Amino acid sequence: MQHSSTAIGDTEQAAGSVLARLRAQRPRVHCITNSVAQNFTANALLALGCVPSMTLSVEEVGVFVAGAQALLVNLGTLDAARRQAVDIALTAAAENDVPWVRDPVLVDRSAPRAALARDLVAGGPRVLRLNGAEFSTLAGNAPSPQTLAAFARENRLVVALSGETDTIADGARRSRVGNGHVLMARVTAMGCAASALVAASLAVETDAFAATTAALTIMGVAGEIAAEKAEGPGTFAAAIIDALFALDGAVLERRARVT
Amino acid sequence: MQHSSTAIGDTEQAAGSVLARLRAQRPRVHCITNSVAQNFTANALLALGCVPSMTLSVEEVGVFVAGAQALLVNLGTLDAARRQAVDIALTAAAENDVPWVRDPVLVDRSAPRAALARDLVAGGPRVLRLNGAEFSTLAGNAPSPQTLAAFARENRLVVALSGETDTIADGARRSRVGNGHVLMARVTAMGCAASALVAASLAVETDAFAATTAALTIMGVAGEIAAEKAEGPGTFAAAIIDALFALDGAVLERRARVT
Amino acid sequence: MQHSSTAIGDTEQAAGSVLARLRAQRPRVHCITNSVAQNFTANALLALGCVPSMTLSVEEVGVFVAGAQALLVNLGTLDAARRQAVDIALTAAAENDVPWVRDPVLVDRSAPRAALARDLVAGGPRVLRLNGAEFSTLAGNAPSPQTLAAFARENRLVVALSGETDTIADGARRSRVGNGHVLMARVTAMGCAASALVAASLAVETDAFAATTAALTIMGVAGEIAAEKAEGPGTFAAAIIDALFALDGAVLERRARVT
Repeated sequence: MQHSSTAIGDTEQAAGSVLARLRAQRPRVHCITNSVAQNFTANALLALGCVPSMTLSVEEVGVFVAGAQALLVNLGTLDAARRQAVDIALTAAAENDVPWVRDPVLVDRSAPRAALARDLVAGGPRVLRLNGAEFSTLAGNAPSPQTLAAFARENRLVVALSGETDTIADGARRSRVGNGHVLMARVTAMGCAASALVAASLAVETDAFAATTAALTIMGVAGEIAAEKAEGPGTFAAAIIDALFALDGAVLERRARVT
Repeated sequence: MQHSSTAIGDTEQAAGSVLARLRAQRPRVHCITNSVAQNFTANALLALGCVPSMTLSVEEVGVFVAGAQALLVNLGTLDAARRQAVDIALTAAAENDVPWVRDPVLVDRSAPRAALARDLVAGGPRVLRLNGAEFSTLAGNAPSPQTLAAFARENRLVVALSGETDTIADGARRSRVGNGHVLMARVTAMGCAASALVAASLAVETDAFAATTAALTIMGVAGEIAAEKAEGPGTFAAAIIDALFALDGAVLERRARVT
Repeated sequence: MQHSSTAIGDTEQAAGSVLARLRAQRPRVHCITNSVAQNFTANALLALGCVPSMTLSVEEVGVFVAGAQALLVNLGTLDAARRQAVDIALTAAAENDVPWVRDPVLVDRSAPRAALARDLVAGGPRVLRLNGAEFSTLAGNAPSPQTLAAFARENRLVVALSGETDTIADGARRSRVGNGHVLMARVTAMGCAASALVAASLAVETDAFAATTAALTIMGVAGEIAAEKAEGPGTFAAAIIDALFALDGAVLERRARVT
């Protein structure tokens, strides 16, 4: 098994390497997510050999996160009922060096931008995954190579901007993943599952920029393969799980469109 | 794109028109529903081009409903934990003229009938969707053309009685949708998804009677198409999502059995 | 329809008989389970003709359990928020002689073993379904024919030990179900669905040992049939629901590998 490289020119190989490590190491990924997304997210992780856990209860979440290899927090900022569970999870993640991803659902666009940004990066996520509108709300600027890099640098994290083409940026590097399929926007929880794969990749690749690029490449290529089998979004949802399960490192590297 | 007609003789065309408008206008439909049904309901809406939102948290639900084009409240009357969320949602719906559907799960059959009925129609749902047993409990009479019309008139809403044949009634008109397939009763959340499509249709068709008839025709025809592809309820659940996605207005009108 | 036999030599026929009775009697099975598993579990029950109910609200769960033919409690011991719902459910089950299954998710491995065991068997489940690690934690011994029988006898229940081969033991008898497929471990909620089928079988077969053996045989054979159709875990999840729906008593008896 080859080791990952973080140079952009090697991202195709890096994706294959991350895939192989996910299957060999089978990290447990704790996912704090909404009930709409839980089942599909769990099955996406299982398809790659990872082990999902999902509890939200305040009595359990600390223990679960402490023993996990990665954490996904896929919630907005305003859900008081779950805020306590998130707080416990982030404390456990910090104490146990569990890398984690935040995938916010920004609701209260009237909240002061600075407060919102502080809240979303509190606890030190390695990766913040959001769409263009969310980035603009948060950063006060439309996404561009410069604003992404500045935001990533300021907050010491990787920004993963979702869209037709995903853009991944840390303060110094930038990659763009062109893989994916339009049907992915027609199945609920697809973005959450992608973020869960980012979290899983953090468990096997310490360079968060490389891990994120690899995870989104894996998801995008699986989506393309699934679209060739599917007759619509219903069969697509099953086919992408099949594709993640069957994904071949060589096929992944050949299909990857990462720049 | 043709405009809908509310005359019963035009219901096939009306269904095609509602389908086209759903795809063009892509309404956001907020669904207050149980966790069993959330994923399938979201995917049914997405398949038609609509945008689902699902939060139940009291901090968020008001903002979500206020900005939605339609609302589904798919809950019984006795869940205290969610009663507050429903109250907030209905207030937001009233203040912002968001049309909404109630799909009750009647539990406490020992509750006084008058109180139950008051509760279910409180806040002015445009459509109340229920089965025969629920109607009998609520109205104190078995469903008949007369009792349905009387109940609809009294409560100023459309009654959508689910069954092998769906019956839709406002105070003056009545339609019957004969489309559907027995496998629909073997997949959980199918009724909730149908109610969500009714809500979506209210967003693009102000005549609630026409909107409801159209939505249930769309769901029933999709079910028939799915049954031709499925090998059982598991593949059926995926196939009906595919069928909603691919549904052709001409096919819809040709297959519709609305009287 | 043949009546079930509880002799181990007749387990294949017993499975066929339980299957036929599930379809004829259509028991309602109330499932207290986590939101990840609810949808798949409901669809597995529906595929066999059973009627799932899933509410967790403290206002409703008592009424639902009182009128159910069986109950599944698929939760760990530490979730305070749901502990009240479980307590109400177990009281209703006891008062109404509703047979029930506990499928624990053991979290707090630091809890005193005796307390943990007391908690898990409180309320008198007919069946306790767990894996080898959970059994060892609970019983203080690795699973063996002797320790399983002793634990079952002490706690007056049937132990169903999940694994590549499932082992079912009451104090006097032991069966082993060799059916199943590796893909079953790659789909979330598969174990919960199996436990729900155990609960359903208790509703139609008073001998809990025979009921449990039959249910796990049905699930395992359906998994094998599904694997022949599936291209991965995504299509497998749909195919096993199809297989449960279509399962033929004669095929079940021919494929059953029960010793």
